[in-house]
Amino acid sequence: MTDTEGMRRADRRSAILDAATSVFVERGYAGTTMDDVAAAARASKQTLYQRFGDKVGLFEAVIEANIADAEAGTDPHLAALRDTDDIEGDLGRFARQHIRDVLQPHLLRIRRLVIAEADRFPTLAQTWFERGPERAHDTLADLFAHLTERGILDTDRPRVAAEHFNWLVLSIPLHRSLYQPNTRPTDDELDAIADEAVRIFLAAYAAPQQRTGRGR
Amino acid sequence: MTDTEGMRRADRRSAILDAATSVFVERGYAGTTMDDVAAAARASKQTLYQRFGDKVGLFEAVIEANIADAEAGTDPHLAALRDTDDIEGDLGRFARQHIRDVLQPHLLRIRRLVIAEADRFPTLAQTWFERGPERAHDTLADLFAHLTERGILDTDRPRVAAEHFNWLVLSIPLHRSLYQPNTRPTDDELDAIADEAVRIFLAAYAAPQQRTGRGR
Repeated sequence: MTDTEGMRRADRRSAILDAATSVFVERGYAGTTMDDVAAAARASKQTLYQRFGDKVGLFEAVIEANIADAEAGTDPHLAALRDTDDIEGDLGRFARQHIRDVLQPHLLRIRRLVIAEADRFPTLAQTWFERGPERAHDTLADLFAHLTERGILDTDRPRVAAEHFNWLVLSIPLHRSLYQPNTRPTDDELDAIADEAVRIFLAAYAAPQQRTGRGR
Repeated sequence: MTDTEGMRRADRRSAILDAATSVFVERGYAGTTMDDVAAAARASKQTLYQRFGDKVGLFEAVIEANIADAEAGTDPHLAALRDTDDIEGDLGRFARQHIRDVLQPHLLRIRRLVIAEADRFPTLAQTWFERGPERAHDTLADLFAHLTERGILDTDRPRVAAEHFNWLVLSIPLHRSLYQPNTRPTDDELDAIADEAVRIFLAAYAAPQQRTGRGR
């Protein structure tokens, strides 16, 4: 396979997954057939089965692709955080971007879908949870352990700190959005939530010598 | 109406709502008819329409009744918190109970249901959000304002503090439970999550003179 062929294959895969995302979100998991996706993606059913195995495999690929797209937004902020000498500023920039990535409307719809189907199709919700929140927690735990070694944070349970930080940043706007699909927090509200999450987190987890002046 | 008649009516209403809860959780909102509920509750359809108006009214009554039941568990802890002279202990006892109330399996199923239907039936999710999380936030905001006046907490935005506290306590186990319906955190895990949530919250929101020795 030449490089050009490889790129064409990747583009084609990406186009199929975009079409599949739209169909799943529109019709639900149980309501979507491989025929529906084949028609929407202008692909043959044979192609879908060859590439994704079955409907579960296709939906897992949809989850994986959409989460990977969303995560790309915070990669530079995570890199900056490892070498930070401004923990409050860099953590704040990460948090503001992270909220926006996670609250994208199509991701909220996929999230609602997997929650809705968690009883009937537990592997889908499990896949979402592992590829989304749990992977983010692993990444943040690794970062917080590194920053503890550097004397910037102070935690002997970086995984717990990571979960609390992630939900401090996300919970308020995420719950509002899950239950109120027709409202959306303003950019100013999102920034204020991110900044307060960082303040709370650092009050509890900054190394003592970093804490000066952070109280109120 | 005599007192005994009033009690019988209340018992009957409660029995109908229990039956309706089971049917909605089993069949989903769209999949449930008033006939289904009437059969499960051994009531006439006329009785249902008289008491609840329509299916939306019935489901709202189901939400209201289930949340009111769950909230009763923390009432004594909230009362203790107003006059507390042990904020860490009393907030910890509230948090441990609050987690257990919210994670009850039937409440998780109703929560999944309203999230699932949020696009098609936004008023149901809105009702859940107002009667559940938002009412809890109002109650906690009122408490935190009172504790700030007493010099125990220090916040000029008690509503924001209330939302952050509520989700600090609930987010980790709630997200695990939403996406992994067949797993349940152990009691020790729940207590550890509650205690760490309280530690983080007080690090950020305790009045300065209360903070001594709370860092790590």
